[in-house]
Amino acid sequence: APQLDGYFAEVDKLSTHFIDRLSKAVAIPSISSDASRRPDVVRMGEFLAAELKALGASVEMRPLGKQPDKPDLDLPPVVLARYGSDKSKRTVLVYGHYDVQPAEKSDGWATEPFTLTVGDDGRMFGRGSTDDKGPVLGWLNAIEAHQKAGVDFPVNLLMCFEGMEEYGSEGLDELIEKEGKGYFADADVVCISDNYWLGTEKPCLTYGLRGCNYYSVEISGPGADLHSGVFGGTAQEPMTDLVRVLGSLVDTNGKILIPGISEQVAPVTAEEEGLYDGISFTMETLHDSLGSKTTIFEDKKPTLMARWRYPSLSVHGVEGAFSAPGAKTVIPAKVIGKFSIRTVPDMEIDRTNECVYKYVKEVFAKLGSKNTMKVYAQHTGKWWVASPNHWNFRAAGKAVERVWGVKPDFTREGGSIPVTLTFEQATGKNVLLLPMGSSTDGAHSINEKLDRRNYIEGIKLLGAYLHYVAEEPQD
Amino acid sequence: APQLDGYFAEVDKLSTHFIDRLSKAVAIPSISSDASRRPDVVRMGEFLAAELKALGASVEMRPLGKQPDKPDLDLPPVVLARYGSDKSKRTVLVYGHYDVQPAEKSDGWATEPFTLTVGDDGRMFGRGSTDDKGPVLGWLNAIEAHQKAGVDFPVNLLMCFEGMEEYGSEGLDELIEKEGKGYFADADVVCISDNYWLGTEKPCLTYGLRGCNYYSVEISGPGADLHSGVFGGTAQEPMTDLVRVLGSLVDTNGKILIPGISEQVAPVTAEEEGLYDGISFTMETLHDSLGSKTTIFEDKKPTLMARWRYPSLSVHGVEGAFSAPGAKTVIPAKVIGKFSIRTVPDMEIDRTNECVYKYVKEVFAKLGSKNTMKVYAQHTGKWWVASPNHWNFRAAGKAVERVWGVKPDFTREGGSIPVTLTFEQATGKNVLLLPMGSSTDGAHSINEKLDRRNYIEGIKLLGAYLHYVAEEPQD
Ligand SMILES: [Zn+2]
Ligand SMILES: [Zn+2]
Ligand SMILES: [Zn+2]
Ligand SMILES: [Zn+2]
Repeated sequence: APQLDGYFAEVDKLSTHFIDRLSKAVAIPSISSDASRRPDVVRMGEFLAAELKALGASVEMRPLGKQPDKPDLDLPPVVLARYGSDKSKRTVLVYGHYDVQPAEKSDGWATEPFTLTVGDDGRMFGRGSTDDKGPVLGWLNAIEAHQKAGVDFPVNLLMCFEGMEEYGSEGLDELIEKEGKGYFADADVVCISDNYWLGTEKPCLTYGLRGCNYYSVEISGPGADLHSGVFGGTAQEPMTDLVRVLGSLVDTNGKILIPGISEQVAPVTAEEEGLYDGISFTMETLHDSLGSKTTIFEDKKPTLMARWRYPSLSVHGVEGAFSAPGAKTVIPAKVIGKFSIRTVPDMEIDRTNECVYKYVKEVFAKLGSKNTMKVYAQHTGKWWVASPNHWNFRAAGKAVERVWGVKPDFTREGGSIPVTLTFEQATGKNVLLLPMGSSTDGAHSINEKLDRRNYIEGIKLLGAYLHYVAEEPQD
Repeated sequence: APQLDGYFAEVDKLSTHFIDRLSKAVAIPSISSDASRRPDVVRMGEFLAAELKALGASVEMRPLGKQPDKPDLDLPPVVLARYGSDKSKRTVLVYGHYDVQPAEKSDGWATEPFTLTVGDDGRMFGRGSTDDKGPVLGWLNAIEAHQKAGVDFPVNLLMCFEGMEEYGSEGLDELIEKEGKGYFADADVVCISDNYWLGTEKPCLTYGLRGCNYYSVEISGPGADLHSGVFGGTAQEPMTDLVRVLGSLVDTNGKILIPGISEQVAPVTAEEEGLYDGISFTMETLHDSLGSKTTIFEDKKPTLMARWRYPSLSVHGVEGAFSAPGAKTVIPAKVIGKFSIRTVPDMEIDRTNECVYKYVKEVFAKLGSKNTMKVYAQHTGKWWVASPNHWNFRAAGKAVERVWGVKPDFTREGGSIPVTLTFEQATGKNVLLLPMGSSTDGAHSINEKLDRRNYIEGIKLLGAYLHYVAEEPQD
């Protein structure tokens, strides 16, 4: 096993300095969705670049051109960095993002969102603390602690930090695909720290994500919006048709009523079955994060399976209908229902689309409506599952056990992190999701926080992971 | 029959002057829904008052206090006026409104909306031309033409012109109820000119309006909006329940699926049955105004019956769900579906509410959802039907025949003009709806217009109506 005591002691010694570094980062309001904050996003990228250079890394700021929906606005650069180029060492590629979600004190924050505020209980509040500035700085802190402890850095580290993650990672896929055999060519494995523990006490390694197909059903009839007094009872109303179509997709208990979806789902294997029982997760935690007890299942195992390995269908809303408070007696002329399906192995995007289109057309045809209906996918994204037995995961598991004294849970997530699949496909290497924060961090909510313990032990974990991955026998 | 030739000739002689008066009124942008335009609404009321005084009417400007939803904003005054107080004459109470819908050139107007623009074909474009400044000025013009022709005015005229009709007639009901036995006590009949011909060629008298009950169905579950990746498949979603409830209310062909509604509808009598065949209305006109051929019925009679004498149910939209363009993967925590039922004789408001509440609760109960559902009426308003054989209508029918050379159609409207019922109840007198404009005037649309012919012949009609109503034998 690698010698890590010196490194760990140095991380503890530097902890105030590392929290100070996080304070500086949180103080830059790098909100990617707000065009007026773009200079702050760029400033945050420059801050990272300067810190990396000071640590001896070579850094490139890669421009991504203009923002597609705002042709006068430059996208923030991708910070590409390399620390070490020793041919005798393995090379690890890590990804993170330096932009954040919007935040205003008036949204209900108890503290100033762009001032890192550390409570007596160790909770460190601030926008971006856990998503994703804490983890990104974790890599920099790991480098610094090695240097100051005089411990040889065990791998060559390639870093890819983007500034548009919270606004769709505009332009990043193209860069990753291009650099798969370029800047990233040496990578032996990939590690992404941009997700969270399943609960608050037990670390996890994440080996799967659901995909997402997002659909629109557009129904139109009259030439313009109508008054329901004048036309009610004489015209076929698009909204009447739409609620009937949307009402046919899924039932209250989440059962998808579209034929051909569940048929594509991979059967549960005995090996997978065994994974669930030990996982640290309770229905109480779920009720807490839900803010209610309106769950579909009463027990842990079907709940986790529903989140991780079964598809789900959500109806998000209707565009074109009356959506304000109050009462308006309009017959909307054209309404667009929005719903999405979270996809899992072995569902195929094209086959799923076909099942959706066929079913929606059949349901609409049965209505006998003279209105016009179109159904189409707004976007699609594939699910991702890695092998939790890959040597990258084995190394990470050993690092977790060394730092936290417990074997990690192997988890999936219900959401998608599309860049994961992009890295896997562009590099051909195994991708590991290695979270730093916990389930109560509130990444996109008010009062986002990162626990001091998760930050400091997380820095140890990232460093330890690099040591274990350096020596873990390949499969 | 009354002597009207001198009056008619004077109206023709003064037609340029009357169009000029309408130009002055249209030039005042009296938009009641826009608080910043409130001084213009007040200015319009003062313009009317000054014109009335110049014609010798006694005028009162009645304040209505503050606007309920904007406690710092005065409601515009109601202009109450009396012309003549000869005890030997009958007294006619007329109503109109001097406020208008919003309008901006950029909405797509071909001309400046607040500049009356008279085309070679006689179409007079301008906001408020037909709704309702043309008809309101019609009464003033009728007075002036009598004076200049030296024809004795046949009745005492009471006028009630409000400035908030397009924003819910705030405060007016209370005034009408109070003045029923006060300012309006002498009224023998009531006449409202604020609706339109059924088509473009044949005048009509309107004797019925549908009521409107407006409902909200509120379904809530989670404490806050959720991410469909994290919670899809594990939580019961309010939107899933809502579209199923909304989808159970009415079918594509307008059939209301709520038990107890159609049971309340008065049967069609032989007399009523006979009214429809002669009415000037074609499906082509309906297709034109609809902008499509997506009608429920193929023929005139069931279409008119559906608009006038049967209830209809429209789903207007959803509050709280995703309603913008694009794709957002939200599970809304609380959604409010909005729908309304147009009501007809002999439906009762309370019984209709009970049927709706009972049915929606049953449908929701069958879903087996843990979410919370509330259903309630946002507002209700009763239908109105008068006897088309009342002497007020007979007099108006004779006036139409005299001016237009044709017997009017007797029509109802699918929409509601709540003030009609308020006047009937407060005065206990028969109310007649006597339209001036035609079906293509586009009251609330861009390019609102009033045809020169409808304005000038309409002034003749209003005056002629007063002569006939002065001498028509009471029932
Ligand atoms: Zn993130
Ligand atoms: Zn995020
Ligand atoms: Zn009007
Ligand atoms: Zn109007």
